[in-house]
Amino acid sequence: MVSHAQGQPEQAAATAAAAYTRAHNAELTAGFEHLLALPNVAADPVGLRANAQYLVAALQQRGAQAQLLSIPGAPSVVYGEILTPGATHTIVFYAHYDGQPVTASEWATPPFQPTLETVNGEPRVFARSAGDDKAAIFAQLTALDALRAAGLKPRANLRFVWEGEEEAGSPHLEQILDAHRELIHGNIWMICDGPVDQSGRQTVVFGARGDTGLQITVYGPEHGLHSGHYGNWAPNPAMMLAQLLAGMEDADGHVLIPHFYDGIAPLSAMEKQAIADAPNNDAMLRQKFWLGRTDGDGKRLLELLNLPSLNINGMASAQVGARATNVVPSMATANLDMRLVVGEDWRAQQQKVIDFIQSRGYFVIDHEPTEAERTEHPRVAWVVRETNSYNAVRTPMDLPMAQEVIAAVRAARGEVVLLPTMGGSVPLGAMERAADTRTVTVPIANFDDNQHTANENLRLQNLWDGVGTMAALEMMP
Amino acid sequence: MVSHAQGQPEQAAATAAAAYTRAHNAELTAGFEHLLALPNVAADPVGLRANAQYLVAALQQRGAQAQLLSIPGAPSVVYGEILTPGATHTIVFYAHYDGQPVTASEWATPPFQPTLETVNGEPRVFARSAGDDKAAIFAQLTALDALRAAGLKPRANLRFVWEGEEEAGSPHLEQILDAHRELIHGNIWMICDGPVDQSGRQTVVFGARGDTGLQITVYGPEHGLHSGHYGNWAPNPAMMLAQLLAGMEDADGHVLIPHFYDGIAPLSAMEKQAIADAPNNDAMLRQKFWLGRTDGDGKRLLELLNLPSLNINGMASAQVGARATNVVPSMATANLDMRLVVGEDWRAQQQKVIDFIQSRGYFVIDHEPTEAERTEHPRVAWVVRETNSYNAVRTPMDLPMAQEVIAAVRAARGEVVLLPTMGGSVPLGAMERAADTRTVTVPIANFDDNQHTANENLRLQNLWDGVGTMAALEMMP
Repeated sequence: MVSHAQGQPEQAAATAAAAYTRAHNAELTAGFEHLLALPNVAADPVGLRANAQYLVAALQQRGAQAQLLSIPGAPSVVYGEILTPGATHTIVFYAHYDGQPVTASEWATPPFQPTLETVNGEPRVFARSAGDDKAAIFAQLTALDALRAAGLKPRANLRFVWEGEEEAGSPHLEQILDAHRELIHGNIWMICDGPVDQSGRQTVVFGARGDTGLQITVYGPEHGLHSGHYGNWAPNPAMMLAQLLAGMEDADGHVLIPHFYDGIAPLSAMEKQAIADAPNNDAMLRQKFWLGRTDGDGKRLLELLNLPSLNINGMASAQVGARATNVVPSMATANLDMRLVVGEDWRAQQQKVIDFIQSRGYFVIDHEPTEAERTEHPRVAWVVRETNSYNAVRTPMDLPMAQEVIAAVRAARGEVVLLPTMGGSVPLGAMERAADTRTVTVPIANFDDNQHTANENLRLQNLWDGVGTMAALEMMP
Repeated sequence: MVSHAQGQPEQAAATAAAAYTRAHNAELTAGFEHLLALPNVAADPVGLRANAQYLVAALQQRGAQAQLLSIPGAPSVVYGEILTPGATHTIVFYAHYDGQPVTASEWATPPFQPTLETVNGEPRVFARSAGDDKAAIFAQLTALDALRAAGLKPRANLRFVWEGEEEAGSPHLEQILDAHRELIHGNIWMICDGPVDQSGRQTVVFGARGDTGLQITVYGPEHGLHSGHYGNWAPNPAMMLAQLLAGMEDADGHVLIPHFYDGIAPLSAMEKQAIADAPNNDAMLRQKFWLGRTDGDGKRLLELLNLPSLNINGMASAQVGARATNVVPSMATANLDMRLVVGEDWRAQQQKVIDFIQSRGYFVIDHEPTEAERTEHPRVAWVVRETNSYNAVRTPMDLPMAQEVIAAVRAARGEVVLLPTMGGSVPLGAMERAADTRTVTVPIANFDDNQHTANENLRLQNLWDGVGTMAALEMMP
């Protein structure tokens, strides 16, 4: 094996990738659109299967041993392997091919008809999963093509693990990985998901927050009642829910639920320094998002991402606007999302919220309440625990393999932003347990890609940069 | 003119009505269903016009001079008159032929396909406006048929004023009535709307609460943001709305908005006595509505109906349930309904709520906020004032004409419940001003008719009893 100065082959790979994406720009754009046109929501298992089969073929076309890793009742994991004779390391690339649910009426263009549009003078493609997370898959595939076109060969064994159930909380991922431990082990797992820094600089992230949630429904009368004849006598569940939720946070977004911030593992000096060194994009983001203020007692966004969060994803009671009628509604529902940091357990975090609800006089049950339950208890809350939940994971930045990743990304992209954790969630713990490895996250999407909402998009330059980054990582020793 | 003991002709009329509805039960039920099958929502002006034309014809068939009273851009008032030679009084019967909006998916049977079902062993017809308020119109028409079949002639002049815009807040009623003051004047207006007492006993009501409302929208980021990447930094509008609404009431439903209860005209001794004498149905209602508690510091429902109210009609932010996604929503909206009692003005009551919102740090505007407004102000609330609003009205129970009404209803139905006000709202003030008269309300619907919500229905026995009540009133001196 030829020896190289650290970063030199990775830099060559990135240069080859840049030449390749310039030369094949139109055909690559069309290829990406083709992938995005495959519907990939959890409600459509047939569509998810078509995605998986397409990706197996794409891996095989690039010389990988590819297959589906399947268990009944879950979307398959797409798996591929490229063995390198004499390799001492195995690098695993994780991404996911499923997307968040879509509410088509909220989109300017149909979510599965990829549409090119110019934003701030640059082309973007609009479609579900453009940023989250088909961009990463397409970049990994294209990086293989670029290396081959330049006559470059990987130095490590490469493995690809592309999940189909990430947006549903990865309920079966650990089970599937466990059943194929020999296939999916690696010296490092590269998690290719999420957005790069808001400044546009390439990010390397060493962990992800955990995620859990609760759905809370509270009750008024058995059916909607005339607000004139019964209002302010029959309890209003929208008001009850408002009062319950209002007590969970102060006006600055600080969570008031007892023990909510207990047990948090402190950041190391290196992690604190990385945050201090990262760009401060807060003022730009406030402007971009039309925010007249932010929560968090003046803390920076990056600091807040290293704390647990509680967020109302949605709230509903009866109808609003032109469809509103003069009723005391029968029920009111809110969905809560909670992010966790290292040191917290998602079951315990759920329980803190449930304890809080009980402390407010609610009889909390795990099923839709019966007539008897509603009549016998002054306040009833049906709480559904999100079971597809997981805890936070953080890889120390000073591990040798972590340092190799930093070197490869720097070789491809120059200055990078190092972050202890991302705000979003990836089931890193399940991966680390099953693959007996550590994880480092290298995202490629633009931060303003509208992931998880309508009009998701990818800035195409992020895709081309991402191909370079992936080529460098595929060239790691 | 033959002289009668007070109540005797009214009793004869009610007896004739009972015989008539027994003899023609099936054909009357079919006729009522035919009327209910005519769609009558504000969003469908063509449907409303068909209702109005049908009702003009129905009046003409019964010997009335009938016509539409119209102004551009509003549903017509259906007007009819039956003159009685030698009459010294004119009695005006008000009802409305329009219905609340429908959300068809919430109905067990289609709202405009009237369906007979047995509830508690008795037949009911399910359709929009079955109780609110076509029952009253059909009872008034059928009472005329019953009188004619028994050879009985009215003693007063009878006038019928059936509105087509009540559920939209009667925005044009006063204007239409003002343009036809000579047609619509009467010694008393009988308001035939709303439900009878929950005990099933016939009610006579001497007023109605006023009604107004507000729509409040508060703002977070310009579009939904990923809750992991931005939650607890980007303000959550659902939480903001919850905190804003939560501060408007205490846990017992007592409104905390400053001055909300100011200026209320006290009840007279006779009115207080009437409330004390009325059935206490609270325990039965709690059971029926599956309520484990009620708001109002233990006050009776009838007492609370003589206070102003604030009710959340609906509340929404992003999506809940299976459609919930992990976002910081962009906005949150609530619709509020406020009932007023005598002594309060609806514009002032709206202003109290707006002042409260401002006191919570909101920049309150009357239009959808611009980017600049959202960026410049820490908290922005778009508040839409309900302009189709009106104040409360109460007729003294001891007026001679009020006493005549009580006597007629007692002659038809025996013991009656006398109430100073109904909880619901009818634009009585507009009627009283335009017709230079006083109003007394005689409802006929069952209290559990689901008016204003899905699965509205009428207990048919209430219809037959209502025909008797209307026949007695049509026979008043």
